[in-house]
Amino acid sequence: MIEDKNQPRTSISQLGEFGLIEHLTKNFGVSHTSTIKGIGDDAAVLDFKNKKTIVSTDLLIEGVHFDLSYMPLKHLGYKAVVVNVSDIFAMNANPTQITVSVAVSNRFPLEALDELFSGINLAAKEYNVDVIGGDTTSSQKGLIISITAIGEAEDHEIVYRNGAKPNDLLVVTGDLGAAYMGLQVLEREKQVFQVNPNNQPDLDPYTYIIERQLKPEARKDIRTLLFALEIKPTSMIDISDGLSSEIMHLCKQSNVGCNLFEEKLPLDPSFINVCEEFNIDSTTVAINGGEDYELLFTISMNDFDKIKGNPNFTVIGHMTENSEGIHLITRANTKIELKARGWNALSE
Amino acid sequence: MIEDKNQPRTSISQLGEFGLIEHLTKNFGVSHTSTIKGIGDDAAVLDFKNKKTIVSTDLLIEGVHFDLSYMPLKHLGYKAVVVNVSDIFAMNANPTQITVSVAVSNRFPLEALDELFSGINLAAKEYNVDVIGGDTTSSQKGLIISITAIGEAEDHEIVYRNGAKPNDLLVVTGDLGAAYMGLQVLEREKQVFQVNPNNQPDLDPYTYIIERQLKPEARKDIRTLLFALEIKPTSMIDISDGLSSEIMHLCKQSNVGCNLFEEKLPLDPSFINVCEEFNIDSTTVAINGGEDYELLFTISMNDFDKIKGNPNFTVIGHMTENSEGIHLITRANTKIELKARGWNALSE
Repeated sequence: MIEDKNQPRTSISQLGEFGLIEHLTKNFGVSHTSTIKGIGDDAAVLDFKNKKTIVSTDLLIEGVHFDLSYMPLKHLGYKAVVVNVSDIFAMNANPTQITVSVAVSNRFPLEALDELFSGINLAAKEYNVDVIGGDTTSSQKGLIISITAIGEAEDHEIVYRNGAKPNDLLVVTGDLGAAYMGLQVLEREKQVFQVNPNNQPDLDPYTYIIERQLKPEARKDIRTLLFALEIKPTSMIDISDGLSSEIMHLCKQSNVGCNLFEEKLPLDPSFINVCEEFNIDSTTVAINGGEDYELLFTISMNDFDKIKGNPNFTVIGHMTENSEGIHLITRANTKIELKARGWNALSE
Repeated sequence: MIEDKNQPRTSISQLGEFGLIEHLTKNFGVSHTSTIKGIGDDAAVLDFKNKKTIVSTDLLIEGVHFDLSYMPLKHLGYKAVVVNVSDIFAMNANPTQITVSVAVSNRFPLEALDELFSGINLAAKEYNVDVIGGDTTSSQKGLIISITAIGEAEDHEIVYRNGAKPNDLLVVTGDLGAAYMGLQVLEREKQVFQVNPNNQPDLDPYTYIIERQLKPEARKDIRTLLFALEIKPTSMIDISDGLSSEIMHLCKQSNVGCNLFEEKLPLDPSFINVCEEFNIDSTTVAINGGEDYELLFTISMNDFDKIKGNPNFTVIGHMTENSEGIHLITRANTKIELKARGWNALSE
């Protein structure tokens, strides 16, 4: 995208560091009363009054977390915000502010940064968070994005990973695995493009799964929905590394075991089609593929009636005594020990 | 340093992402009552009760902000924390928590990361901040550190950049320019070393200025001192980019001008000696060299008696009407318009 020679190219160094920050942040307004002071001082000043402050941070590195050959910069900016606010939603909290730090090598013109920040701005509006600070600098190689998300919640609302009890139901929002298969399609098309740049792929059948990869959304609706249903999950986490990995986190921190049922896994029909096309087992992808940014939580069995039939939620298993271990119960009713393979950014 | 072939080398990938985070953070305890939940969930949970929350963030990139050929990793970890808590002190606030995100290429063994985190840990103890979260991932090239510092302050304590008034005195803590000259000495020794690796430099005369570069400290004492003296600055900023650049920030945001007096600039004798050795004008360095991490602030003239003779403070100028502009008054009593050259991370 940014390699297109016909795009206008304004060198970042023309603006200087302070000019650049001013240019990139001029559209960022402030909408929360908790934002006393945003961009423009040594630090931002926030006021959460009697609420708790929730903080999460993520580092995204070109070539490790994203590939600009198929990830448009605007989408990347949007996704970088989504990834972070998703962690705040996973605490059953409300994201209110973010800081955004960006490092770029000199191959990026100002127009590329504008694209990135337009995506950040769009997501900030969609998720109603104020951009209150950050840092802009040069990198030796590629694009680096570091976002810290800050949120607020009443003490009694916050849901940790460690409150699941045996017999609690394991519930997931949305569907699983599509973001991973979207990535597989994009990787395949990239290779086809490298062999034949004139090839025009028909990506229509892959619209949903590609969108799950390139433009994921965080589940901002769930907090409101659970409140309306009068449900407080006993534990919660978001699915960034993959279902099995997140189940292991909940189990480890809550000191419980889990039975996960293969037949209950919510899968989108187009996802199943693509798995068949790629000859990959859909259950394996649904369990180990990451980046779905859905919420995984446990509720007391007593709350089952409140979510029964609700299309936002799928009960996919139940928690057990710790000694029973963590298992997948297959469609053939065999019990397989679940291993967290997840998505490991550090394996090579 | 880390290129030494005799050092033990444990590959990071042996631990995996979760194992690595567990390994690196095992020594991080929690000491603040405001830290409700630190590392180990989707996000940290903080409680500042009726105080305001202060947030600042910085991104440090190898080859741009530091050079590992003369910056030991432990010092780098320490400095990365100092740089961030300095921004919190510049708000007249008290740093309480940090998040630490690190990306490393596969040339870094686990032992190198341990060194880095031992420095981070040391600084966290020195400045009494809890490490409450972060992210660890791989990079395509070099080491990347992103730290977000969080602090607290009563509303009436917070000092912004925009409160300076004409006739206010401009005050700086400590001395100026040494960190920049420390960097010049280190750069020179690096070049000498590249020509003759057996050369053993005598760095004794440079101890102070090198320490100012490699192991700077943030002025955590000033907040307490100002409180004891019953002074609330009208504006404040920390000196990271250089004195002239910071003066421009205070003037622009406070809508005032400034007269800065060359003869008042606090310079360490060893700094002056090195400037002579390098044949560089010490005033130019004192004004434009960055990374001193001293505090620059303005106070009402009525508060002058409270700081008079205090070795921590030097009055270096006074603010004027905006229309008078920003000037350096030289020893020869000529008036030169001050230009913010500062340290520009994006110039090439």
